[in-house]
Amino acid sequence: MCELLAMSANVPTDIVFSFTGLVERGGKTGPHRDGWGITFYDGPGNRTFKDSDPSCHSEVASLLKSYPIKSKTVVSHIRQANRGRVCLENTHPFGRELWGRNWCFAHNGQLSDYKTVLQPERFLPVGNTDSELAFCTLMDKLAARYPKPPKDRKQAFRFLAREGRKLQQLGVFNMLISDGVYLLALCGNNLHWITRQAPFGEARLIDTEMVIDFQQETTPKDVVTVIATRPLTSNEAWHKMEAGSWCLFREGKVVAQG
Amino acid sequence: MCELLAMSANVPTDIVFSFTGLVERGGKTGPHRDGWGITFYDGPGNRTFKDSDPSCHSEVASLLKSYPIKSKTVVSHIRQANRGRVCLENTHPFGRELWGRNWCFAHNGQLSDYKTVLQPERFLPVGNTDSELAFCTLMDKLAARYPKPPKDRKQAFRFLAREGRKLQQLGVFNMLISDGVYLLALCGNNLHWITRQAPFGEARLIDTEMVIDFQQETTPKDVVTVIATRPLTSNEAWHKMEAGSWCLFREGKVVAQG
Repeated sequence: MCELLAMSANVPTDIVFSFTGLVERGGKTGPHRDGWGITFYDGPGNRTFKDSDPSCHSEVASLLKSYPIKSKTVVSHIRQANRGRVCLENTHPFGRELWGRNWCFAHNGQLSDYKTVLQPERFLPVGNTDSELAFCTLMDKLAARYPKPPKDRKQAFRFLAREGRKLQQLGVFNMLISDGVYLLALCGNNLHWITRQAPFGEARLIDTEMVIDFQQETTPKDVVTVIATRPLTSNEAWHKMEAGSWCLFREGKVVAQG
Repeated sequence: MCELLAMSANVPTDIVFSFTGLVERGGKTGPHRDGWGITFYDGPGNRTFKDSDPSCHSEVASLLKSYPIKSKTVVSHIRQANRGRVCLENTHPFGRELWGRNWCFAHNGQLSDYKTVLQPERFLPVGNTDSELAFCTLMDKLAARYPKPPKDRKQAFRFLAREGRKLQQLGVFNMLISDGVYLLALCGNNLHWITRQAPFGEARLIDTEMVIDFQQETTPKDVVTVIATRPLTSNEAWHKMEAGSWCLFREGKVVAQG
């Protein structure tokens, strides 16, 4: 299995604190040694840092811990391989372009007997994970359903949530998917989120000794939601999502759910 | 205008030496202050580091100078904006997936009166550069001509070279395009390349004080080709490409040209 991390915020925010906790699970406090990746959006553009080395030893991960990249939408993943060998092409997040937007996707879980069911045509996987195949299948369906983007792009994400739920019949399927503005979290069995806003307080990482006082780092208008497989802090109340439920975030706020 | 850099090699090779020369041109010895990017392939997977900050001051560029990522195929670009503002989505190399392969593209030049001519449908630009629009147009044409990959993938690159030449009627168009195995360089007005192989010698960068003895870094079987807008070293003989000509490289060797 793997661990997911994502952020949706109304102001460009750095995710160093949460990422620092996550990368410890990549080979130190957790067994997820098989690569990691993180996608930062900056407007419609994005950039993905990935590595097939364990995140706890990765030079690139070290850079990201010391060099705060501010973003309103971030998707990250650390991998413990089950389907597909350890290599760069099997490392999440995966990305594709549709409607002139950058989409990114990360998955935690494992599907079974999926090869005859998941047969995308337009978007094809580069690697050989169940995850990328599921992503390509979702993008194929989305492009077929909406050759042009729906006026209200939330509809597209409702559609993705419904299609994602169908994939849950094939196994464990927790997913994060974003077009840079919206961020959809679909829970298969394990996904938590927390929204931080004024009055901000202190937070303490579970995986390493680090405490942050968000009041020092924020303004009273900031709204920042963090989503993670397991809570990253020990002294805050995270929402535990129910299996099969989904939340759509924009600018740090829940804008739809089901 | 911009500067291009690429590498094709028969063994995973680091490009730190050439990249170190290039990034100096990103705001120090050259005026290309408007972002930079570099794509490294590792098998079919790839990863792109990009930044809209000048490369000579970029923290990410510093990491790459000190942390040698070995790759057989690399494409890089530093930007001096003409079409499209300075932002992440306008930063090269651009990437798209076709046939389950990661394609990447970088352009140096400037097109005029292109908006009515370049109207891709399947691959759409995320940013607003002439370069990304040209790339999407090429990918559209490639996907239309070859819905499935041709048996000999060199054909696809011959097709791209022909289509790229048509774009040269719209302005200056030097391009690099790769699927990770093949690397096509099409010259509009300014592109040079050099192949280094045994017996290896010393090379001296033009843009900063750095000398490397490749004999210390290589084995006798290595073949490494570097392509750049302008030669990066002062003591080696680079091939100057003619306007309109193209070279296709694989494993460091020219496998087709026109």
